[in-house]
Amino acid sequence: MLKRETKDYINIDPLQTGGKLTKEAKEALLEWGDGYSICDFCQGRLDEIKKPPIHDFIHQTLPEFLGCDVARVTNGARESKFIVMHSLSLKKPNAYVILDGNAHYSSYVAAERANLKVAEVPNTGYPDFKIEAEKYAEVIEETKKKGEIVLSLLTYPDGNYGNLADAKKVAKICHEYDIPLLLNGAYAVGRMPVKMEKVGADFIVGSGHKSMAASGPIGVLGMKEDYAEIVLRKSEKYKNKEVELLGCTARGATIMTLIASFPHVRDRVEKWDEEVKKARWFASKMEELGIMQLGDKPHNHDLMFFHAENLYEISKRAKKGRFFLYRELKAKKIHGIKAGLTRYFKLSTYLVPKEDLRYVLDAFSEIIKKYS
Amino acid sequence: MLKRETKDYINIDPLQTGGKLTKEAKEALLEWGDGYSICDFCQGRLDEIKKPPIHDFIHQTLPEFLGCDVARVTNGARESKFIVMHSLSLKKPNAYVILDGNAHYSSYVAAERANLKVAEVPNTGYPDFKIEAEKYAEVIEETKKKGEIVLSLLTYPDGNYGNLADAKKVAKICHEYDIPLLLNGAYAVGRMPVKMEKVGADFIVGSGHKSMAASGPIGVLGMKEDYAEIVLRKSEKYKNKEVELLGCTARGATIMTLIASFPHVRDRVEKWDEEVKKARWFASKMEELGIMQLGDKPHNHDLMFFHAENLYEISKRAKKGRFFLYRELKAKKIHGIKAGLTRYFKLSTYLVPKEDLRYVLDAFSEIIKKYS
Repeated sequence: MLKRETKDYINIDPLQTGGKLTKEAKEALLEWGDGYSICDFCQGRLDEIKKPPIHDFIHQTLPEFLGCDVARVTNGARESKFIVMHSLSLKKPNAYVILDGNAHYSSYVAAERANLKVAEVPNTGYPDFKIEAEKYAEVIEETKKKGEIVLSLLTYPDGNYGNLADAKKVAKICHEYDIPLLLNGAYAVGRMPVKMEKVGADFIVGSGHKSMAASGPIGVLGMKEDYAEIVLRKSEKYKNKEVELLGCTARGATIMTLIASFPHVRDRVEKWDEEVKKARWFASKMEELGIMQLGDKPHNHDLMFFHAENLYEISKRAKKGRFFLYRELKAKKIHGIKAGLTRYFKLSTYLVPKEDLRYVLDAFSEIIKKYS
Repeated sequence: MLKRETKDYINIDPLQTGGKLTKEAKEALLEWGDGYSICDFCQGRLDEIKKPPIHDFIHQTLPEFLGCDVARVTNGARESKFIVMHSLSLKKPNAYVILDGNAHYSSYVAAERANLKVAEVPNTGYPDFKIEAEKYAEVIEETKKKGEIVLSLLTYPDGNYGNLADAKKVAKICHEYDIPLLLNGAYAVGRMPVKMEKVGADFIVGSGHKSMAASGPIGVLGMKEDYAEIVLRKSEKYKNKEVELLGCTARGATIMTLIASFPHVRDRVEKWDEEVKKARWFASKMEELGIMQLGDKPHNHDLMFFHAENLYEISKRAKKGRFFLYRELKAKKIHGIKAGLTRYFKLSTYLVPKEDLRYVLDAFSEIIKKYS
């Protein structure tokens, strides 16, 4: 009943490739699995636990890794985004947030939850779907006529096309208007080198379960010192409790798996070039099969979006209709392309061994042949 | 570095006794530990995953267990409370929430985060610290002169004294004023029989890691159908995403351990009488040692608060000062009374075998003798 069928499949779902636990995290999971295990060591606040070394992780390791002044762990990247949006929108009933048009749905929903209005920076459309930094200026100009803009957000990379916009330039433009920039790095932090300070952003968000080999849900949030006072404001009554974190956030095995995997994560980030090379190689092989890679080209990330007109044509006459691809791949123990998709789909090659990717390419090739 | 020193101790910390994983949950933890594992099976929303049976758990099992119309899993009891408070306070800048004076700090912080003002129903003070239902009427009368009251909350039991107030009566009083009642059952749901509908409350909150043998952080939230429309309102743009849940909440091993432990949790609730009997026996033995149990007497819950004037006297002259008790207990591999406490402390006997409790009693007896 509770078995995970896909556990031993080749998994190319972008949600999954960066979240697989390390050996160390699996050990931490069992060691710290019980309910509130870490609270045995707490004197009042999660991030101040000295042993296990949560304090050092949150106050030294993480800020260094994220390139920020102050960091916290949260219940996930979306929760990190909400924390920032909610803090900055307090008592501002007519405030706006600027989102890139490729933003994850949870950025939009976090804004809605914070009662923020949303203005979107459109992408360039098919086939590149790029977010152009200059467009931020245009959208800001239009939006500021309607209300106060409290935050801009850039998804880096976005979760559909794996596009990496010119984040530095976006930061510069936002700052010209005195608007802080949040970099949503749910698919960057823990996969590729990225530092908030180098980009010039004011906030950075990462996902433990998406890209830091941690058991979910857990996220990270980094910020400039200037914003800590408002985002991490303390309770009036309980002086050491941070209101937006409701006191404590990832209070269990999640934080311990994040810490356990961290040395591995820090190392793997250094090997990012190899991952990009592998992704480009995979994309080129897909194109040889008539499946075109959209988004940035050459591509700079393991998350890629494909356009397969040939698979779409097959779906029109295949017995299982549009579910044929999912079923064929499943029969070959490949998971990660959503059931029912054939024409457009995304996948990730991150940490997937090249021999497994060859197997995936062969599978696509065989499927196309089979239905020709 | 990442070992859990207290793992094999006798643990009487109220935070820990109800959160120990079952064998089944430990298996689920390893099976579903990877990042976003369950998302392999998702068509767009966590609570709609059919296999593993998350849908049935959230839409059938949980509402039945909680005695409510609609249920969800959240990132914890405090997050459940914030979800409700935030929803009910939308666009109400001068709104109040009524909290019992024994409320957990996170109830207060959740209210602060939701920009709610707090009015407190005081407890009766030493030695019973009771919350009297009638007092809700008084506080409501005073508070409604100052602003709109959007919610009342009762902590059931509270996390300091383990007191169980007359929740039915509180619900009745709140409803006379048309104020919904949230029952914070972080120490009830999964330990003792409690149903929202029997109490007549409008919301019920539980904690997976505190009292449902799940790996944290995870909570549950039950509500009356009437409130689902506002609390579980959907995104305007992403029609199937629930705004207050930011789309999905406990998206990983946490939900799977909750489900895996559930049959055991449902069974153990039925044996609550035995736990109450054991708690009363333990309290009586502590009193024989000169350590008085405060709060409800006879006590109705495993969470108990003690007043040890004798240990306090010892602390004044012991070598390690007020840390002597913590160190003495640690040497005997007993964990759960906060370091530095001697005069007043809480503990829990929940699911702690009677022979272990005898060992704890002997330990207290020996410590008192040693310093006499």
